[in-house]
Amino acid sequence: MEKTCYLLVSLISCLILFFLASSRFLPTKPELPGCSLYAPWCTSTASSKNPIFSKARSAGLHHKSTDHSTDTPKHPLDPLTVQEINSVRTILSSYDPFSSTLPSIHTLGLDEPDKLQVQIWRKGDPLPPRKAAVLALLNAHSHVLTVDLESSRVTSHAINPTSGYPMLTTDDIMSAAKVPFSNAEFNKSLTARGLSWSNSLCITPSAGWFGPDEEGRRVIRVQCYATQGTSNFFMRPIEGLTMTVDLDKLEVVKFSDKGIGIPVPKSSGTDYRYSAQEKPPQMEPLNPISIEQPKGPSFRIEDGHTVKWANWEFHLKADQRAGLVISRAMVRDSETGELRNVMYKGFASELFVPYMDLDDSWYFKSYMDAGEFGLGPAAFSLVPLNDCPRYSYYMDGVFAASDGNPFVQPNMICLFEKYAGDIGWRHSEDPLFGSEQIREARPKVTLVARIAATVGNYDYIFDWEFQTDGLIRIKVGLSGMLMVKGSPHQNVNQVPNQEDMSGPLISENVIGVVHDHFITFHLDMDIDGSNNSFVNVNLVKQENSPGINSSPRKSYLKAKRKIAKTEKDAQIKLKLYDPSEFHMINPSRKSRLGNPSGYKLVPGGTAASLLDHDDPPQLRSAFTNNQIWVTPYSKDEQWAGGLLVYQSRGDDTLAVWSERDRPIENKDIVLWYTLGFHHIPCQEDFPVMPTVSSSFELKPVNFFEANPILGAAPAFENDLPVCRPSASS
Amino acid sequence: MEKTCYLLVSLISCLILFFLASSRFLPTKPELPGCSLYAPWCTSTASSKNPIFSKARSAGLHHKSTDHSTDTPKHPLDPLTVQEINSVRTILSSYDPFSSTLPSIHTLGLDEPDKLQVQIWRKGDPLPPRKAAVLALLNAHSHVLTVDLESSRVTSHAINPTSGYPMLTTDDIMSAAKVPFSNAEFNKSLTARGLSWSNSLCITPSAGWFGPDEEGRRVIRVQCYATQGTSNFFMRPIEGLTMTVDLDKLEVVKFSDKGIGIPVPKSSGTDYRYSAQEKPPQMEPLNPISIEQPKGPSFRIEDGHTVKWANWEFHLKADQRAGLVISRAMVRDSETGELRNVMYKGFASELFVPYMDLDDSWYFKSYMDAGEFGLGPAAFSLVPLNDCPRYSYYMDGVFAASDGNPFVQPNMICLFEKYAGDIGWRHSEDPLFGSEQIREARPKVTLVARIAATVGNYDYIFDWEFQTDGLIRIKVGLSGMLMVKGSPHQNVNQVPNQEDMSGPLISENVIGVVHDHFITFHLDMDIDGSNNSFVNVNLVKQENSPGINSSPRKSYLKAKRKIAKTEKDAQIKLKLYDPSEFHMINPSRKSRLGNPSGYKLVPGGTAASLLDHDDPPQLRSAFTNNQIWVTPYSKDEQWAGGLLVYQSRGDDTLAVWSERDRPIENKDIVLWYTLGFHHIPCQEDFPVMPTVSSSFELKPVNFFEANPILGAAPAFENDLPVCRPSASS
Repeated sequence: MEKTCYLLVSLISCLILFFLASSRFLPTKPELPGCSLYAPWCTSTASSKNPIFSKARSAGLHHKSTDHSTDTPKHPLDPLTVQEINSVRTILSSYDPFSSTLPSIHTLGLDEPDKLQVQIWRKGDPLPPRKAAVLALLNAHSHVLTVDLESSRVTSHAINPTSGYPMLTTDDIMSAAKVPFSNAEFNKSLTARGLSWSNSLCITPSAGWFGPDEEGRRVIRVQCYATQGTSNFFMRPIEGLTMTVDLDKLEVVKFSDKGIGIPVPKSSGTDYRYSAQEKPPQMEPLNPISIEQPKGPSFRIEDGHTVKWANWEFHLKADQRAGLVISRAMVRDSETGELRNVMYKGFASELFVPYMDLDDSWYFKSYMDAGEFGLGPAAFSLVPLNDCPRYSYYMDGVFAASDGNPFVQPNMICLFEKYAGDIGWRHSEDPLFGSEQIREARPKVTLVARIAATVGNYDYIFDWEFQTDGLIRIKVGLSGMLMVKGSPHQNVNQVPNQEDMSGPLISENVIGVVHDHFITFHLDMDIDGSNNSFVNVNLVKQENSPGINSSPRKSYLKAKRKIAKTEKDAQIKLKLYDPSEFHMINPSRKSRLGNPSGYKLVPGGTAASLLDHDDPPQLRSAFTNNQIWVTPYSKDEQWAGGLLVYQSRGDDTLAVWSERDRPIENKDIVLWYTLGFHHIPCQEDFPVMPTVSSSFELKPVNFFEANPILGAAPAFENDLPVCRPSASS
Repeated sequence: MEKTCYLLVSLISCLILFFLASSRFLPTKPELPGCSLYAPWCTSTASSKNPIFSKARSAGLHHKSTDHSTDTPKHPLDPLTVQEINSVRTILSSYDPFSSTLPSIHTLGLDEPDKLQVQIWRKGDPLPPRKAAVLALLNAHSHVLTVDLESSRVTSHAINPTSGYPMLTTDDIMSAAKVPFSNAEFNKSLTARGLSWSNSLCITPSAGWFGPDEEGRRVIRVQCYATQGTSNFFMRPIEGLTMTVDLDKLEVVKFSDKGIGIPVPKSSGTDYRYSAQEKPPQMEPLNPISIEQPKGPSFRIEDGHTVKWANWEFHLKADQRAGLVISRAMVRDSETGELRNVMYKGFASELFVPYMDLDDSWYFKSYMDAGEFGLGPAAFSLVPLNDCPRYSYYMDGVFAASDGNPFVQPNMICLFEKYAGDIGWRHSEDPLFGSEQIREARPKVTLVARIAATVGNYDYIFDWEFQTDGLIRIKVGLSGMLMVKGSPHQNVNQVPNQEDMSGPLISENVIGVVHDHFITFHLDMDIDGSNNSFVNVNLVKQENSPGINSSPRKSYLKAKRKIAKTEKDAQIKLKLYDPSEFHMINPSRKSRLGNPSGYKLVPGGTAASLLDHDDPPQLRSAFTNNQIWVTPYSKDEQWAGGLLVYQSRGDDTLAVWSERDRPIENKDIVLWYTLGFHHIPCQEDFPVMPTVSSSFELKPVNFFEANPILGAAPAFENDLPVCRPSASS
């Protein structure tokens, strides 16, 4: 009888399988679905089917499928191919320490060649030896391996080099999320709330690290939601019910239910799918609008990853951890045509998302999404015309699953030209004398590379935007769902002291808990070569000295340049009343006028983490202790939160590295910038958040001899497309 | 002989008349050109021709001309029409105090009816009595007048109510710029530099105010430039040569030339006109790109000024001083369809642009562009396809010239829908089960109203952007020319101490002087009605109390709401490490959940003025002492620097009003925000600056019951336009 029931539940489960998401909060049911289609967690099935054939599956996607089985690397920085990933798996299988049991593979990607090898490489040269960097887990030990594909050997192997574990695999998440359903206490809690397996699912927030209690084994939290009546289970938390699950033993090691009496919020008004909407919002419909390029976009992609557009050239690839990596960004000198180095490598190195609620079910929520879950597997295929405009080019990611088999993340990057109606530069002179007046303006057209990583509830939209004037803008947009808290209250009138709540009431029985988002970028700037210096150009108020200057002014600002000698000189907290510009310069490359060639960091979206430095989440995410850091380049220092982040103790962060205070003047140095958001939710964020975004810029400063787009042509009516409404309208 | 020479020079002058710009630095020659076409300074000629017929004059402009002679006001806030301006002039001419001499008219515009009258007015109702507000000048006295058009009477008249004079007229500027050419010392200085009338022109920086020396009369500075070989005379300063001119007597009252020996910078590389370029920049050409709407834009304009788009409705008009004014902005409730008040009036109230050089020729440069020069006359016609995209709607301004006659500023505002490829909201769920997966994303389409005000050298681009989620973004872009300083140096190697320069060397003999830009916005928010409160939602770090909470967390943030009782509670300096949200709420309008309806100010582009508070420029621009202020609504407190700004002493600024510390809780209140830029120039800013922009937002917070664009439709391929390349390509 029990078994029949179990099967029945499984069948019902199948009908609502679309509730199963992956990545951070991948919800799941007791039974794994059949892997009828390729999915990252169906690794063994997948490898026997066709994992390397990517096709867009959503109704809206009608892009050509790409067969990756014959991909070959063309550039030293090209990601590992399907064949290479398969080779790595084979090599690891026959590697002595793993001969009995292959470890679970947590990340497997290109071990990039040394910078010098990449810098001297030219198209047509043979590639430097291809190597793989592997983070694996066996018997709760972290293995850090390098695999040489040429010699088919493991060439380096460290075990537990620091605290922490590699990022979770989809199998980890899937398995952990199933554990509660075989736990008696959990089932009792469900029943007590009138819920059952068929209308609930669980997600897996990471455990964080809070001292010795949970050390020595991999643990994760599991929290659950009611699913009935909506696709948006995130808005229906089973509040106060939290389990700690041993990720390797797959058992509940701590069960806590303090939420009896807190109702599960209603489902009505939560579904966000277009198909589920009963009425459009009260607004006049908009006529179709589109960015049109009937002659096609102006960029081209060579050898799969090298993007050439206007005066820019860079290498673009998907990455399992960072989501998207820009390498070898070079811009053509506007006068000489020389292709000049700007940035060797830029990517989102780590995120930190602390929630401001100390309850038993909340205190641990302090996500480090890149190192704990990975932005690559979370960057699901983009929706054409809605995530990216027409004429976008879509690029796939090829990653390894936990069994070492390759899988394809289709259409995870889009690349498009953007024209937003903005002005590149302009000036008027207007004596109004017929044609002799001056009206000069240039439209601004840019190139954008985008991913949207859905790490559980939140959607992070990453844009790398390139301008013809040499500027790079890095923008992060936040959308998706809030992580909400159940509440007994339906109206703030019922709340004796609203400040006791950890956030505003945003729907009946739903609190939007206050939280922060920090995204720390690794920006390996190589302005005209590797050896660069970091200059703090400080604007200092000067008092006028009456003896020296007869001006009736009392004060003025002076820009004082100070070159950072060591790392601590470059640990920067931004100050509104003590402002600076932050330049990365090449002291050896001077302009015609003698100014050093440089790029400046233009901060934006600045919110600082205010937590105590010795608070465990802040200790692990100490890379947010400053907004800017500069470190000497080290291949081992790519990930601001450390190589092994899951349950890490903060012993391998950017803050630890920087504390060594190494020399950074006229060296190969890396700039780090943290974009921050404080988020106090509001009703408008329910049930899905309108995108909030912030950006910062890397901007040429005395890099070009003069305005590099002075000679750019204006737009002429005769060149623009001729359009008519679509046939359907 | 001398006369012949004079005529000859005049003739040559005519050939280079296109160098003559208007507004702040309107350059001019000894002889006024013939007013063969209508121009604002040719007022008497103009009025006898056809000043009220606007046509686009630039080659690129092919818009229909608009005849304004029959314009009639349709809305209480509509600007004065051509007929009304003519009536005001007639009334003033027969007004006793002016019966012998009509004063010069410095601003003449609608005296807006009381708010209540406007609020209760409905389409079809008769308009409230039409009145004009006039700032005039007679015998160096400022006259502040109200003219009732119904009774044809002057109904109020104050003389010199505060320090300061009305904004300069174009005649003021034109006349002052001519004065040096009849000054012997000036001619000697020109000759000493090998220059002459035919290859130089003068502009008119405002004098500022620096104590009693220059009080009691209107004065202005005059500085000059070499014009040969370029349209961009701004890059060729005759450094160190400064005259102070009495604006009413039109004579040089102070002459100073400390620049002998500083060469006039070369002309090569300075011309920015497309026609003057010898070669395009080194980049691959871009294919045509355009925002296309073959069914036309979705907005409509009723009665000339009422804009209706999606869920927005607002009144849009040109303004002589503010450039562009948004009034009565209302958004439709997404659920009920109710049209709800958001902002009664929003506009750029004042600018402050202090330069950081105390030399004799520089210390006074501390512009207040709105009150000294006016953004309206500076907002020359926009260039289609380059300043604004296709399908833009262009609106004219109708202003009064100094003789009281109307003139038209054609195509000074553009209005367009913007699609930048951005995402309104999105979420994915990805169990990858065929069509059951979720991919929901919505493109973001917005509406933009834009002007570009060329105040002398700088171009200020003002964008008011409206989003369907209720957000208003106010963006300011800076382009145009730097105000540069001549230098004896051609290379920084020649400079013993670079810090002695007031800015970087950006071309041979050219220093880009460090300066700031502050733009202070008047934001009369009326959230669901006039009585609002300002709430500082302060994020305060809390230490965990071990006795109270067993969490292993040590710290967290709490949002603490504090309602500002009086003005001083709302004098806000932004602090990165003491962050707040800033809400304007209607305490009487509660959501379903009991939250007060509100909008928050989301700051951006924050740079603070660091000058001493008692430094004369800072005293006059004390509205920049804080980033945020809130004042009780007062019709007399619209202009942050005071009603009469020219040579004002800072006795009528926002800072003075706010110091009264009036109650502001649950009152009709006005929010003020200052967007700031520090600008350390660089080579890329020469000879014309790529646009730098910053923005801030007004964003609904618990205003809507839920995400207002939840039901918005995605874009479908079938609805998009069908385009082909233009015939010419």
